[in-house]
This record gives sequence, C-alpha cells and structure tokens, in this order.
Amino acid sequence: MTTRRPTIGVFDSGFGGLTVLKALLELIPEADYIYFGDTARLPYGSKSIETVGRYAQEAAHFLEAQGANFLVIACNTATALALDRIAATSNVPVVGVVEPGAEAAASVSDSKKVVVIGTDATVSSHAYRKALRNHGLEAHEKACPLLVPLVEEGWIEHSVTEQVARIYLSEAFTDGFHDADVLVLGCTHYPLLKTLLRQVAPPNVRIVDSAESTARAVLRHMPDLLPADGDDTAERRAAPRIKFFATDSVEKFRRLGERFLGRPIEHVEHVDLKE
Amino acid sequence: MTTRRPTIGVFDSGFGGLTVLKALLELIPEADYIYFGDTARLPYGSKSIETVGRYAQEAAHFLEAQGANFLVIACNTATALALDRIAATSNVPVVGVVEPGAEAAASVSDSKKVVVIGTDATVSSHAYRKALRNHGLEAHEKACPLLVPLVEEGWIEHSVTEQVARIYLSEAFTDGFHDADVLVLGCTHYPLLKTLLRQVAPPNVRIVDSAESTARAVLRHMPDLLPADGDDTAERRAAPRIKFFATDSVEKFRRLGERFLGRPIEHVEHVDLKE
Repeated sequence: MTTRRPTIGVFDSGFGGLTVLKALLELIPEADYIYFGDTARLPYGSKSIETVGRYAQEAAHFLEAQGANFLVIACNTATALALDRIAATSNVPVVGVVEPGAEAAASVSDSKKVVVIGTDATVSSHAYRKALRNHGLEAHEKACPLLVPLVEEGWIEHSVTEQVARIYLSEAFTDGFHDADVLVLGCTHYPLLKTLLRQVAPPNVRIVDSAESTARAVLRHMPDLLPADGDDTAERRAAPRIKFFATDSVEKFRRLGERFLGRPIEHVEHVDLKE
Repeated sequence: MTTRRPTIGVFDSGFGGLTVLKALLELIPEADYIYFGDTARLPYGSKSIETVGRYAQEAAHFLEAQGANFLVIACNTATALALDRIAATSNVPVVGVVEPGAEAAASVSDSKKVVVIGTDATVSSHAYRKALRNHGLEAHEKACPLLVPLVEEGWIEHSVTEQVARIYLSEAFTDGFHDADVLVLGCTHYPLLKTLLRQVAPPNVRIVDSAESTARAVLRHMPDLLPADGDDTAERRAAPRIKFFATDSVEKFRRLGERFLGRPIEHVEHVDLKE
C-alpha cells in the first residue's frame, strides 16, 4: 500500500527560511514542498507580537489552503511570537525552529550555558530562554539586528561583518556567560555567516544551526506520513516538487533566494494574501 | 478674516519621515500636523514598485480621511515610486522629497555633477537622475542599504558606520563623478548621519538634506493656506498640534521616533489600515 507523498509547507518573512528548506530537501527528499515568503511585509524581526502573530497566521492558513499537510515555521521570530497561536488553529502538525534548536543545544552543551543570537523580536520574547530552561540550560540572548541586512547586502565574509559579529559576540559571551559552550543561531539568515561566526566565537564553542536541527525534528514527525520502507515506487523516488510563493517581487525572490537555497529557483508565484 | 489653520499630513514607512516633520515644525509652526508611520510594513526601500505604490496610496487616503489638507510624502522611496499615483488620486496638494532635493542640489552645484545616496528601490527607480536632469545636472545614484539599519541600531557615530559610509561613498564618487560637488541625502534616515558623512565625503562636497529642502518647498505652497500676515490671532500663535499614527507597536514608535524628531513624542495611536 502506498502512503500519500507528504507536502510540507514552509514559511518565513522572506528568504531566511530557505536555509531550513535547504536542510529539509537534503534530509527528506521523499516529500514535496510549498515555500511561502512574506517579502512584502518583511522583516518580522523588528515588529510587535500582535503584528507578527497576524502575519504568521495568514501565512499558515495560506499554506494549508494550498494543500500542505505539515507546517514548518522556518522563522525564529514567527516561531517565538506565534507558534502557539498557529498550532491552536491549524489542522495539520506544526513544527517551529526554536524547540529543535534548544534540543540540539542541550545535547552538546557541557557547561549548560548557551548564547543565543537573533532578532530584536525573538530576543524580547525570551522564547529560547524558556525552551532552554526546560532542558536545564541557562541562556544569554543577544539581539543582533545588523546581521540580517549584512547578509542581504551579500557581505558574507566582509571585514565589516566580522567587526560587527565581534562586537555582538563580545557583548553576548559576558555577564557570567564567559564559559558558555554553545552558540545557537536563532535566526534563519545566520547559517550563511557560519564560517565567519566560527572564526569570531570562542574556539571551544559549538555552533547550533537551527535549520539543520529543525529538519531533523521534522523527520522525527514523518513516519506517519512517509511511504513504508519497502515501498520503493516511482512516486517515492521522484525528486521533490517545490512551489514558491512570495508577496513582493518574484524576480527579487528568485535572485536573492538562490543565495539562501544554494540551488536555482525556477518559478515563483506572486500572492497577495488578504490585503 | 481668519484663514483656517492648515493641517499637514506627513507620511513615511516608519521613522525617517520624522526628520522631515522636524524641519517642517521649525519652518512652519503655524500649521498642525498628522504623522503616519507604516511601521508594520517597513521598510519600503527594499520592495517593489507595485507593493510600495499600494502601501503609499493607502497611507495618503488615511491622512486625507483624518483631515489633512496638504500631503507631504516624507519618504524618498514612496516619492520615487508613487508620487504621480498619489498626486493623481488625492484631493489636496502633494509634495514629495525628490524634487525639492534636486532643486537644492541644482542651486549649489558648480560642476553640475551630483552623487545621490538612497535605498535600493529609490536608486532603481532613477527618480533623482530624472529630476536632476531636468535641472541640467548629471547624477550618480548609489544604493546604501546598510545605512538605515545602522541608524536604527543607534550607531550614529560608530567606527563601523564610518567604514560602511567610506565604502559606499568611494564607490559613489567614481566613474566620472570624482568631481561631483554635491551629495544628496536621498533617504530620510540619513540626516542623522550628516556629521559622519561630512567627515567621510570629499571636503569640497556640499551636503543636501532633503528634509530641509522639502520643508522649504512646502512653505512655498503655503501662502494660500496660511493666515494673512496681519492676522496675529491666538489661533495663529498657538503651538502646532501633532497627531501620530503607527501601524506597529506605538511604544516602539515613541521610543525610536524621539531620536529622529529630536523632541518627546507623547501619544501615538495604533491604526490598522485595511488589512
């Protein structure tokens, strides 16, 4: 008996969630994907809980209406501010990026002290502090609002970006967190800065990329949805189908998005939501 | 006979337009003001002409409905992408920030070569190049997407900001524009960086702040609206009444807005527009 091939809906305010989609495609090629980037209203990271909650809920409804039978909130801000609200109103399972990142941090930390970097909104919500406390870890959360624009400017290995990262991390690994041994990348833009952050962070520190840990969390939910092991049908072996939707310019989404996804983006459909 | 005290509606995607409001309050204290900041959807500078046009038109309609009898588009991106559309559908006079900036540049340039810095969207529109060409000037337009986030991070006199400005300006004063003698601040966030830009720009270069030149352009339109000279009534001498509206957190608007306006902001009303 063939189980239906799952369709995973992935959303973010813009492009960062494509780092999560990239990890998902590598780990779960047996699924199809719908990606929604709310580029007309990005960024979420500087906005309030009410506004982000409303935007995220509209995105979740859109993906369900498009046929997603699993939702991934591939945005730390939307997860931190709206996961509960979305989970309560969705008819399909929902996974965010915060809890997987916290779990991964807990599994590698010896000192039980963790530094989390993210947007203003994510840090203000203390979502990571709460999630890490449940795993017995202490967290120092540090907002790094310049890192997203630096990534979007393409200054991935730029000396200015290195200085900015050095300033932020020196302010983060302090106040009793000198001995923190994990750095959680609490924003889906930051995986593009992993090499640079590796150079700037204290050498003993492990870097947790919530894109990868989220993909693993989704896989743990997948046994119900995926075809049985012996079911080696053509459908199962087919390459993932991916549909992209964006609320602002599809041309810009294609151009900038390829940098995050690491592969060409062929077709993007424009969508207006309820505005 | 007392002429009705005018109400000037001022709008921007967020906070930058407050530099224009500041210049207006200094130059035209005989008016009342309504300021609208579309903070739930900022920034406009990275978005497409369709999206910015729709947002800006909604803002203009809102201000008219609130009783504004004069509109100032205090945002370079919205002016560059949507002034014609707004002027065509408004029932009151509309002034943007691009033409006043171009006029001011023309009045001080000897070499007839001008460098304009602004957002991606403003630069892509070539609104300044067109406006300056009408005054017989050549323009080199340079997008500086990191300057807005640096201002919002509060790094106004920071060495990182100085390096970023140095990189952008060295790329701008080149390709036949080594002898440009005017730098137009084509984004309403940039007046906060005027001191720093003065240090980084070539010494002979004059800096044109479109906030100030826009206030002067509004004043030129005002004779119809302002009370007659002899009309020194209490109403005329009253301090300007200012109403603030924002689409995202009013608390954040108050806090960040004071930095741009240079005076306390007492009350901000939340508004949702049509979303």
